[in-house]
Amino acid sequence: MKFKASVNVMLKPSVLDPQGATLERALKSMGHRNVSSIRVGKLIELTMDCENQEAAAKLADDWADKLLANPNMENYSLTLEKLP
Amino acid sequence: MKFKASVNVMLKPSVLDPQGATLERALKSMGHRNVSSIRVGKLIELTMDCENQEAAAKLADDWADKLLANPNMENYSLTLEKLP
Repeated sequence: MKFKASVNVMLKPSVLDPQGATLERALKSMGHRNVSSIRVGKLIELTMDCENQEAAAKLADDWADKLLANPNMENYSLTLEKLP
Repeated sequence: MKFKASVNVMLKPSVLDPQGATLERALKSMGHRNVSSIRVGKLIELTMDCENQEAAAKLADDWADKLLANPNMENYSLTLEKLP
C-alpha cells in the first residue's frame, strides 16, 4: 500500500527564528500592523510503500526523528494519508 | 478577532528540488528502498488580527501571493484557524 506522509518541522518556541522575524518586519513595513508571531518551518512530503498504516506511521516517525528534524531545536508533527 | 494562518509553500512539480533529492538519497542509503517523491517546502505560521474570517483569508492570501511564496516557482495553500 502506498502512503503519503507529510512532516511539519517547526523550530521550538524557545529558538530564535530570524527568517520569521524578517518576514514580520517586511509585512509591518508594508503597513500591516496586525500581524505577529511569524514562524517559518519546513514541510516535507514523501511517498512510501508499506504493508499497513501502522507500519507506515512508525517508519515515518522514525525518519522524522532521525533525519528530517533535529530534535534538539525542532518539533515535528506527522500526517499520513493512504494513496489510492 | 485573532486568527492563526498557516501557509504551505511547495515548489511546483516541474521545478527541481535538490533538497528533497538529497533526503531521498540519504534514506535509500540507510536501506529504505520504499521511499519516493520527497519534496521539501516551507510552512509559515502567523497570527493576525482581523475583523472577520473573510477579511483574514483575503489578507493572508494576498500576503502569501506577494511576499511568502514566489508564484513563478511555487504553489501555496492556506489554512485559517480562529484563535480563542
